Amino acid sequence: MAGKEKPRTLERLAKLIRYYILSSTTEAGSGHPTSSLSATDLMTALLFGGLFRFDLEHQQHPNNDRLIFSKGHASPLFYALWAAAGKVTEEELLTMRKFGSTLEGHPTVAFTYAEAATGSLGQGLSIGLGMALNAKYLDKLPYRVFVLLGDSEMAEGSQWEALQLAAHYKLDNLIGIIDVNGLGQRGETMYGHDLSAYKKRISSFGWKTEVIDGHNLDEILRAYKRAFRSRDVPVMIIAKTVKGKGVSFLENKNGWHGKALNREEYEQALRELGEIDKTLRGEIAKPDGSEPDGHTPLKRGEIVYPADKPVATRRAYGNALKRIYPEFPGMVVLDAEVSNSTFSEIFQKEYPERFFEMYIAEQNMVGTALGLHCRGKIPFISTFAAFFTRAFDQIRMSQYSKANIKFSGSHAGVSIGEDGPSQMGLEDLAMFRTILNSVVLYPCDAVSTEKLVEEAALHKGILYLRTTRKDTPIIYSKDDEFPIGGSKVLRKTGNDSITVVAAGITLYEALGAWEDLKNQGIFIRVIDLYSIKPVDEATLRQAARDTKAIITVEDHFAEGGLGEAVRSAFDNLPIPIHSLAVRIMPKSGKPEELLEYEGISKNAIIKKIKEIL
Amino acid sequence: MAGKEKPRTLERLAKLIRYYILSSTTEAGSGHPTSSLSATDLMTALLFGGLFRFDLEHQQHPNNDRLIFSKGHASPLFYALWAAAGKVTEEELLTMRKFGSTLEGHPTVAFTYAEAATGSLGQGLSIGLGMALNAKYLDKLPYRVFVLLGDSEMAEGSQWEALQLAAHYKLDNLIGIIDVNGLGQRGETMYGHDLSAYKKRISSFGWKTEVIDGHNLDEILRAYKRAFRSRDVPVMIIAKTVKGKGVSFLENKNGWHGKALNREEYEQALRELGEIDKTLRGEIAKPDGSEPDGHTPLKRGEIVYPADKPVATRRAYGNALKRIYPEFPGMVVLDAEVSNSTFSEIFQKEYPERFFEMYIAEQNMVGTALGLHCRGKIPFISTFAAFFTRAFDQIRMSQYSKANIKFSGSHAGVSIGEDGPSQMGLEDLAMFRTILNSVVLYPCDAVSTEKLVEEAALHKGILYLRTTRKDTPIIYSKDDEFPIGGSKVLRKTGNDSITVVAAGITLYEALGAWEDLKNQGIFIRVIDLYSIKPVDEATLRQAARDTKAIITVEDHFAEGGLGEAVRSAFDNLPIPIHSLAVRIMPKSGKPEELLEYEGISKNAIIKKIKEIL
Repeated sequence: MAGKEKPRTLERLAKLIRYYILSSTTEAGSGHPTSSLSATDLMTALLFGGLFRFDLEHQQHPNNDRLIFSKGHASPLFYALWAAAGKVTEEELLTMRKFGSTLEGHPTVAFTYAEAATGSLGQGLSIGLGMALNAKYLDKLPYRVFVLLGDSEMAEGSQWEALQLAAHYKLDNLIGIIDVNGLGQRGETMYGHDLSAYKKRISSFGWKTEVIDGHNLDEILRAYKRAFRSRDVPVMIIAKTVKGKGVSFLENKNGWHGKALNREEYEQALRELGEIDKTLRGEIAKPDGSEPDGHTPLKRGEIVYPADKPVATRRAYGNALKRIYPEFPGMVVLDAEVSNSTFSEIFQKEYPERFFEMYIAEQNMVGTALGLHCRGKIPFISTFAAFFTRAFDQIRMSQYSKANIKFSGSHAGVSIGEDGPSQMGLEDLAMFRTILNSVVLYPCDAVSTEKLVEEAALHKGILYLRTTRKDTPIIYSKDDEFPIGGSKVLRKTGNDSITVVAAGITLYEALGAWEDLKNQGIFIRVIDLYSIKPVDEATLRQAARDTKAIITVEDHFAEGGLGEAVRSAFDNLPIPIHSLAVRIMPKSGKPEELLEYEGISKNAIIKKIKEIL
Repeated sequence: MAGKEKPRTLERLAKLIRYYILSSTTEAGSGHPTSSLSATDLMTALLFGGLFRFDLEHQQHPNNDRLIFSKGHASPLFYALWAAAGKVTEEELLTMRKFGSTLEGHPTVAFTYAEAATGSLGQGLSIGLGMALNAKYLDKLPYRVFVLLGDSEMAEGSQWEALQLAAHYKLDNLIGIIDVNGLGQRGETMYGHDLSAYKKRISSFGWKTEVIDGHNLDEILRAYKRAFRSRDVPVMIIAKTVKGKGVSFLENKNGWHGKALNREEYEQALRELGEIDKTLRGEIAKPDGSEPDGHTPLKRGEIVYPADKPVATRRAYGNALKRIYPEFPGMVVLDAEVSNSTFSEIFQKEYPERFFEMYIAEQNMVGTALGLHCRGKIPFISTFAAFFTRAFDQIRMSQYSKANIKFSGSHAGVSIGEDGPSQMGLEDLAMFRTILNSVVLYPCDAVSTEKLVEEAALHKGILYLRTTRKDTPIIYSKDDEFPIGGSKVLRKTGNDSITVVAAGITLYEALGAWEDLKNQGIFIRVIDLYSIKPVDEATLRQAARDTKAIITVEDHFAEGGLGEAVRSAFDNLPIPIHSLAVRIMPKSGKPEELLEYEGISKNAIIKKIKEIL
């Protein structure tokens, strides 16, 4: 295609795509046709105007351009594009939103051309940022990343986190397209069709902007071409569009968001569209053959900690990252401006080219990690455990992208002490436990932390590692193994009366209780439940058979943490179970004072045991 | 104070305040003196320069100006200001960060002059926005709201959510002050001392900006005065400052974040400060006597639902808001651009002046709600259940402000159907359960929803109400009562074999199972656990005594939800418990198909019961 022929073919393709959008949503009886129609010309021009480069016969090509629909509700358009490319049949399109179809209501990775699941708004730009970061700094490939954005979703703060970081990292391979149709779900957006409002704001964040008519194919093509010439500056195409474009009774009408046409309306719409060439297929340009530089895995280093010197598990996390990187050259480390607290700075100092400072913007950090995962990297990302709550929506969404991301949250629990509750991670275990098939780890000493970071790198999936602020004694040797789903029975006799299950900081309280009680002739079993999810059901069941009660102790709120994980391990619990956890408003103080105050100290454990016996 | 005398007194006060900052942090052995010193002149001028209006003898005065330290780690400065005002003694200052002191590491409402707890960054501006919204639109009072911001925290997207909304609502009574000291926790911020970067961005968001030298008292005073003259436009004072200002070996030095001086360094710092007048006290101007308009509570309306017409609980939520408002004139309703889905639009249409559109910016919505709470309002805020995860950090922080906020999350669980997993709230119960003393409610029909919205309005604290997308049958009458912490035993005989505990959508599946089994001569007990937290332990214990197993059924992930709430109700569970929940990757489909697929349908309940029997 070249010259004047191109827009004409694009026009015909756009018509076909509009037809697909209408037919698939009407067949489904729900969906978002109008939000799809507004972006149809923008996307048709991109994919079939010779601009987007993607080898349809080699979908895994590392140098394929990337397309993310941040406005995931425009999925009918997304699927229609691949249908127009010949990769989805019309029959398949008509399964959209039906049980078992890969064409879900909002894109998930069940659909092979979806890079990542979207549909919770304001996340796609961060994902694109991760992919663009990979192209520019890691794989050094010339692929481009395109993100289709809705105007309504620009209200999400996460967008501005991504905008600032993309400019900071000079990502000229990242191109955003805002489909400014002026209408949100329930009415006009904050800025309606005032395109200058977007231009002003986005320019001020250091992006190049192109304001265009989003239904003029020539103008659209020219804007993309100008965008491709940008150097060191990301580009945002801000397009004025009409919601429902192409169907007169939908155009710019409120009340049509997330609503399919009924059969009668559908027939009327088709009459308006006019003749459709269902045999037409769009051509997508091919990428060049670039491949990323390979990295050969080397042997990881040795774990070395003097047995008599306490070390914080957060420091061991940093040490482990640095130690194992040679074996896992796909690793990339991100941190939200607290690398000197999470100790990811240890890695940064050794491998600065594999570390990205994400500043205090946790949502974007998680989205970026997802983008890096999409390009085959193994992201390890860290901040205070408490501050991962900031990105719960991004964490939640990443499970629908089958993400492989390792989260490390430091400063867990009241044992951080003087800084007070705002800095205490007390709901992180609950949060990460809710993620389907997630792994949640909580080591107590530096050695087990190192081992678990190795496990994390090997594991494919969403994994959370909780670390502790203060130094803790070394209790394990480097020959001990810590499989995911395991536990360690640290104290055991044939005569144990009660089992105490702890992890992290409270493990030492449990060991202290064991010591004191032993001197009184009372023996307890002590289990280090370093794997909170999956949980070691066999060992817990054995303890339930051997002893007359279980006590769980955790530096976390009572809900959703270690205690409930243990309870959920049993469908039939033959003995009583008691859960010690953070149950009163935490405050500033010394770690020991706070463990006492919350009833999760050695003394609290002993007291509870004596109550039971 | 007037004329030249003012800056001179302010200088002496600033010196006293610097002394307090250094002495309290050195005594504590931790804290953030350098982040306090950079903002000292900005805050001294504000409080004691005749600008800030606050009646020290009447702290509850509705027209007092409001001051929020969004950069909560500058708490030593915050406490020192009130010490300089004569409201905190030097002795009290020296208890800072100690167990039992109201002067915590980061401000919480334990300290009487803290409007709200801060310390998780990027939240103060939203809180201020809520207070300013109240002054301008609800209480119609002339008080001003001042928010001290750090430069690092401007990276948080939530700041930009607040900035856009404040401009949208023309909040000329909101004044932000950015302390641009150029240094974050681990090094330089994204923009360092490039003040124009902030000015450009913030201006583009529709704010007036004032760029000043943050250590020049005259310049500071003039900037505030100019800010006071702004009409319909919020103002940001962007101040160039020096971290550690006033102590040569701290000034602009990296590595001093969150670190107190040791005794020796402290003595040296004091020598640099020179003579300090410990008897000096700053004067704070008084507000005028304005009082808010009173609203007299009237009688609420009646609940009316035809017994034979199914109604979605989300719609009942909207109906209830409208119905009860006359009795609770402190109510304010916020929604994140989905009021036609959550049905808060029913309230909006009746009481538009008590409704604020928050657009798709959930973090700021929660912060704003906290600000409204601080000014005595009862905020009811709604979005999709899934999207409250976006604001988990703000929700978490609001507990440390002892907030009274009602959250309503619609579109819970896989039963939303075709829209797919991105829109399904499957972790909301777990999230809200982690909040200390929270209430978590999950009604199944319109009548119980109406009753629980009444309970919500009466209850003081953080309360979450989960609603369902699809219509559900009316099973209760308006004379039924639904106390928080209660449950309803819907099916009970003297001969029940097994107890099924359900809530919301799964309650109907349980009732269906009861019907089918009854026809087979099998009787089960069915409990509507509409109060997930607190949970009705007595009724559950009775069921455990009467029947031989408990089955929990929930449209939520297995972790942290109804199932674990029931398990945690027992320290000693004499019978087996089985939890049916969402355990495999959800997808698009019809609600019934998805309930079946996830094993939380009537059939799944019957199957499990037959396995047990």
